[in-house]
Amino acid sequence: MDAPPTFEPSYAAEVSAIDAAVEAALQEGTNPRLLEAMRHYPLAKGKRLRPFTAMTVARAIGGEGVAPRTRPYAVALELVHNFTLVHDDIMDQDLVRKGLPAVHAKWDEATAINAGDALHARAFELIADLQVAEPSLRLLVRETAAMVRQIGEGQQFDVEFERRRDVSEAEYLHMIEYKTALMYKMAARGGCIIAGGSTAQVEALTAWGNTLGVGFQIRDDVLNLTADPRTFQKEIGADIRGAKQTIIAIAARERMDPSQGSSFAAAFGNSAATPAQVRAAIDVLHQCGAIEYAQAKARQCVADAHSLLVAVPPGVHKDHLSHLVRLFVERTH
Amino acid sequence: MDAPPTFEPSYAAEVSAIDAAVEAALQEGTNPRLLEAMRHYPLAKGKRLRPFTAMTVARAIGGEGVAPRTRPYAVALELVHNFTLVHDDIMDQDLVRKGLPAVHAKWDEATAINAGDALHARAFELIADLQVAEPSLRLLVRETAAMVRQIGEGQQFDVEFERRRDVSEAEYLHMIEYKTALMYKMAARGGCIIAGGSTAQVEALTAWGNTLGVGFQIRDDVLNLTADPRTFQKEIGADIRGAKQTIIAIAARERMDPSQGSSFAAAFGNSAATPAQVRAAIDVLHQCGAIEYAQAKARQCVADAHSLLVAVPPGVHKDHLSHLVRLFVERTH
Repeated sequence: MDAPPTFEPSYAAEVSAIDAAVEAALQEGTNPRLLEAMRHYPLAKGKRLRPFTAMTVARAIGGEGVAPRTRPYAVALELVHNFTLVHDDIMDQDLVRKGLPAVHAKWDEATAINAGDALHARAFELIADLQVAEPSLRLLVRETAAMVRQIGEGQQFDVEFERRRDVSEAEYLHMIEYKTALMYKMAARGGCIIAGGSTAQVEALTAWGNTLGVGFQIRDDVLNLTADPRTFQKEIGADIRGAKQTIIAIAARERMDPSQGSSFAAAFGNSAATPAQVRAAIDVLHQCGAIEYAQAKARQCVADAHSLLVAVPPGVHKDHLSHLVRLFVERTH
Repeated sequence: MDAPPTFEPSYAAEVSAIDAAVEAALQEGTNPRLLEAMRHYPLAKGKRLRPFTAMTVARAIGGEGVAPRTRPYAVALELVHNFTLVHDDIMDQDLVRKGLPAVHAKWDEATAINAGDALHARAFELIADLQVAEPSLRLLVRETAAMVRQIGEGQQFDVEFERRRDVSEAEYLHMIEYKTALMYKMAARGGCIIAGGSTAQVEALTAWGNTLGVGFQIRDDVLNLTADPRTFQKEIGADIRGAKQTIIAIAARERMDPSQGSSFAAAFGNSAATPAQVRAAIDVLHQCGAIEYAQAKARQCVADAHSLLVAVPPGVHKDHLSHLVRLFVERTH
């Protein structure tokens, strides 16, 4: 998966620009403690994948000239992303994020709820000042707000699915479209709109962003079971012990024969499952074809995403969009 | 405090319209549990004082014709108000609201955080569709978002002040302007802008809304110590036992002589203070002039608010705005 030679320098430069713009966006406030809590996650260096996606789409459609007016929207999405992290960490009682104490752990839960709310609001202050004409402004306010509400629905489904064993593939796909893919969808859609893309381009890139996000999550489910433990950031098989309703677990329900089923059941949802039991369950998921089924879905996302890019004129930034697809859906860790 | 004869019918009719519009605004969503949690507070009948303020200002400036296009903004403010209640009840661990179980008590904390976030977002969906020209749309998105962020700052100060005994009057006024008055300020400002008020009218009604909110809070502090316990909804003297840094407690610090100080200190911040100790502390606050000082401040708010209304043309809705001032700042319970 070689990157185009221009990719890394372009990515590094944009991440620096986003870092600076995020920092500049979080200066205001009369309560020092709240401001510090608001800045905790956004100023910790991150991959900035959502804003980078928005910026790369904008450049691919409108050239370098549209970058300055697109960046505030990219930053708004990064603030929304960080606000959801602050609140998710309270909901999940996660104490560490990016190697730092979680906001609710470093301050307290009240401050973390407040800081998330304030980051959420700050994103709409940035959107209010976008240099776009009225119809685009309305659309970006309306759809970004709907996105936040729907991410909440996705998060709610994710929590509810933990207590269920009968989640369907359609329910799973709805959940990951809302919880994970919507931010990439709006990054691509917003970037294209601000860059002045045609209706056809906006529709194609909206679908592209969604496909990118869905492919990312399916690839994540696959890697959770198959990645090299030396390079993968999470524990291999954690989804098995946690009885996570992934596309693989859902596909396996229909594919396992009874002997496979009992071997799988020994580890699935068993937080005390031994490494050997988890490996045996993963073997079952290979043998019954569930992992291959998910990999085929991910490959389909890659193919769909590449064909949606026909709406984008050739050039270095289109190449970067193609590379993003590979980076998201063909990654090995 | 007799209301103008048109006030009660006008208020009742508008509350019905707001109730219906709030219900209509909370229909969408793919997650039934989240939608139910979002609807819990907003659909419980409330006083709708913020949306009524926005609607009355709009009618006073632009006549009945502007009501339909103002109402979505009034509803957006009501959703913001309710989102802050959902989150505040988590922060304060309050289990009951409007006689109902709090959202986090009826569902769980994760659902309540999510429901508040979704109500917050829903408000901006409504604002995106306001029938106003671009400059007003931008202003309303930007300033409503800033309001939410600043309400969070006010809430943060309120929590921090609980651990302090040296809050200044300026700090107190900043806190109540952010935590309480801003919503009324934006209700009046937004209503005036949507109704097409002149710059002078917008500025006057912005100041009027702020004064209304500040006066309301100061009156609340006074009533907490002086109201008739048979009609006041809260416990008389709770601010004393809770060591609340109200304008009265702050004024008293400079006014009490040493013998008064020790009598006051026996009850202030003493959650086990006897009713007699609390009454003695309230007597001190009367004797040293702190309660009268706060009442004079509240009277000044009434005078300021009435003189700001010179910007509004005479008529029944102006009379209703005058009555709102009396209702907020001269109420006895």
